[in-house]
Amino acid sequence: MDGAGTLFDPGWLLVEENTIVGLGPMETLPSDPAARDRMADRRVDARGGILMPGFVNVHTHISMAPFRGLGEDRPDRLRRFLFPLEKRFVDKSLVYDGARFGLIEMAKSGTTCFADMYYFEAEVARAADEAGLRAILGETIVDFSAPDAAEPYGGLEYARRFVSDWMGHPRVSPSFAPHAPYTVDAEHLKIAAAEAEKRGLILQMHVAEAADESARFTASHGSTVKYLDSIGVLSPRLLAAHVVYADDADIALLAARDVAVAHCPQSNAKAGRPIAPAKRMADAGVRVGLATDGPLSGNGMDMQTIVSWYPKLQKVRELKRDTVTAKEAAYAATIGGARALGLGELTGSIEVGKRADLALFDTDSFGVQPIHDVYSTIVYSLKASDARSVLVDGAFVVDERTMVGIDESEAMARLMETAARVGAAAADL
Amino acid sequence: MDGAGTLFDPGWLLVEENTIVGLGPMETLPSDPAARDRMADRRVDARGGILMPGFVNVHTHISMAPFRGLGEDRPDRLRRFLFPLEKRFVDKSLVYDGARFGLIEMAKSGTTCFADMYYFEAEVARAADEAGLRAILGETIVDFSAPDAAEPYGGLEYARRFVSDWMGHPRVSPSFAPHAPYTVDAEHLKIAAAEAEKRGLILQMHVAEAADESARFTASHGSTVKYLDSIGVLSPRLLAAHVVYADDADIALLAARDVAVAHCPQSNAKAGRPIAPAKRMADAGVRVGLATDGPLSGNGMDMQTIVSWYPKLQKVRELKRDTVTAKEAAYAATIGGARALGLGELTGSIEVGKRADLALFDTDSFGVQPIHDVYSTIVYSLKASDARSVLVDGAFVVDERTMVGIDESEAMARLMETAARVGAAAADL
Repeated sequence: MDGAGTLFDPGWLLVEENTIVGLGPMETLPSDPAARDRMADRRVDARGGILMPGFVNVHTHISMAPFRGLGEDRPDRLRRFLFPLEKRFVDKSLVYDGARFGLIEMAKSGTTCFADMYYFEAEVARAADEAGLRAILGETIVDFSAPDAAEPYGGLEYARRFVSDWMGHPRVSPSFAPHAPYTVDAEHLKIAAAEAEKRGLILQMHVAEAADESARFTASHGSTVKYLDSIGVLSPRLLAAHVVYADDADIALLAARDVAVAHCPQSNAKAGRPIAPAKRMADAGVRVGLATDGPLSGNGMDMQTIVSWYPKLQKVRELKRDTVTAKEAAYAATIGGARALGLGELTGSIEVGKRADLALFDTDSFGVQPIHDVYSTIVYSLKASDARSVLVDGAFVVDERTMVGIDESEAMARLMETAARVGAAAADL
Repeated sequence: MDGAGTLFDPGWLLVEENTIVGLGPMETLPSDPAARDRMADRRVDARGGILMPGFVNVHTHISMAPFRGLGEDRPDRLRRFLFPLEKRFVDKSLVYDGARFGLIEMAKSGTTCFADMYYFEAEVARAADEAGLRAILGETIVDFSAPDAAEPYGGLEYARRFVSDWMGHPRVSPSFAPHAPYTVDAEHLKIAAAEAEKRGLILQMHVAEAADESARFTASHGSTVKYLDSIGVLSPRLLAAHVVYADDADIALLAARDVAVAHCPQSNAKAGRPIAPAKRMADAGVRVGLATDGPLSGNGMDMQTIVSWYPKLQKVRELKRDTVTAKEAAYAATIGGARALGLGELTGSIEVGKRADLALFDTDSFGVQPIHDVYSTIVYSLKASDARSVLVDGAFVVDERTMVGIDESEAMARLMETAARVGAAAADL
């Protein structure tokens, strides 16, 4: 999966330090095993498997893992359950433990790079650093009292400190994350955008996700997208999550300003939202990446589900079988995501000189065979459980189905303990 | 999961011969291990797992497994690839091997009962008998030359023999399966319906699936459903697959005639079809079951994906978060399917006196925890790979992740060999 869609079946790939330094069809490798061994300190026999760029998940809130499934289908789930429970339980320790758990779920399903926004985001950075994943992490800024900032917009100050602490990390980039146009006023949106611009960072925000948000900004400015343009926030720095409500004029504006969009098909569907015009945005030149959204919304954080949802839901939207091909979907979930995060030169495809951010999948399960078309297999057949090994920056983060940087049993035990406390409190609500 | 939605956490269940003879909360079991051992020859420690009724997959074509992923996204895929390849390769051996492979995929993901239609359906029956699954199997009847019948409608004669050979089997019921209203004329539809009625069997048919089918019968009779009613084919015997095109009047008619519907959300989406009004049909009293459709359409044959697609896609259709709850979806995929197949008294729920058709899922993966709401977990989190053991009619068909009645390696090897032959021929098309 380079830019040209080359397939080597079978093929080889050589990693040196953090970089892909060679690849090709098997017949271009020395046939002598000893010569092969001299080429590399470690050799992985991936016969029958699929080696591809790791998935890039461009929007999630991994630390919310302890809340997954909570109050499912209850009316007013957010206000009645989530908000009071977040207020009571979200602290550094929950965010760190939730992040470690979510990182394992993502890495063990073949994700190598992700964008996240939540509170205490420095704790997510710490966990991502340990796990070895590539990440763009945004501290949330809202106009109300948050778990990590008592004053409205206190997140801005947290974000400045977080950014200054983590700037320059080789894999983990901090970013600013105003929550949404309806929870951050124009003045603070402009401040956050200016801070991101000044430092060359991503600005993450939920955009045009909710019906009432869309109604409000349609009344005042024609649309949410037009409102954001009127205050100068649309730029190549902006990673806009969801963008469910966007007409052709909005799409043209997003393309003209080179905004990136995080498309969350499964989460949007589960919330009963209209299908985002993701393929139309991609066709218009918008950088569209795919995303799970958080565990309360998705609920899974594996990208196998999402890469399959993208073409299917777009086909439903356009009522055309050929709306999105399997190959397009596979690219959207890898290099498409990398470009949405401004990391397209570094990761998201398999090319000499790029970082070795790779996922190896087994294909011996009864849900996967036969393989007539590898893109069909990647998009429509692979499951999270087929992921075998994952490298980020040339290092194994999952090695033969085992997480390298985080103790899995300890992470599971801590998550279960937190979830039990949260669940007990929820029973009283 | 009985009719009342009782949960025992933790709980126990006792099977004698093929029947559930006892169940309850753990404290109603003798605490003495020796006493427990005397209750049963074999005791399964399912701590931390979820024991639920096995999934019921009400529409598929499992023998098409060798074709999965073939010609994906090619224009005119069916006419250019599938039809010539079916003509050349579909014989008893392909159907039997494809069925064994598909049965393993289904059973190992927790499906205990399924409805299938294809050619040489007696071979599917043979495989289902060996595998130990419960099945309703329909021989396809079409107005053109088929792999197992050279003359138009030759499938009718095959079906009569098939039915007479398999009537009375304790788990495998034969049925008649006219392909669709546009490939079987009214005269032969009536014959097939009468044959099914006479013997008390299911009549399987694709109904209101395609746009041109809907246009044709809308022009002639107001709708496909109205056309079928006009020729007397709508009855409690009819299992209508898809029913994508149905307005309120059609839904009322389906309910009045007590027709069952096989809803195939993922397959319909992948084909770019409108979202079937499945929840509206269920609300109107139509017996709606969930289905994967065949491996060329779906592409996976695991019901975990489908039970998740059902609520999400219905929410998109109605643009309402509370359209289908997780609990409703879990019931639709189990007892809903059993009722659609006319087996609601026998299977599909956990009640004393019902057959022991059960699936045990592990919940220790990072995609599954935490469990705040077991229905949310079943519908939105469980994956095919979480299935651990499966019983049908009181017998293990999957025991600790291993298929009991079919040799997995042999089934895989035979499928791969057939798929390789098919793939080589496809390359010349």
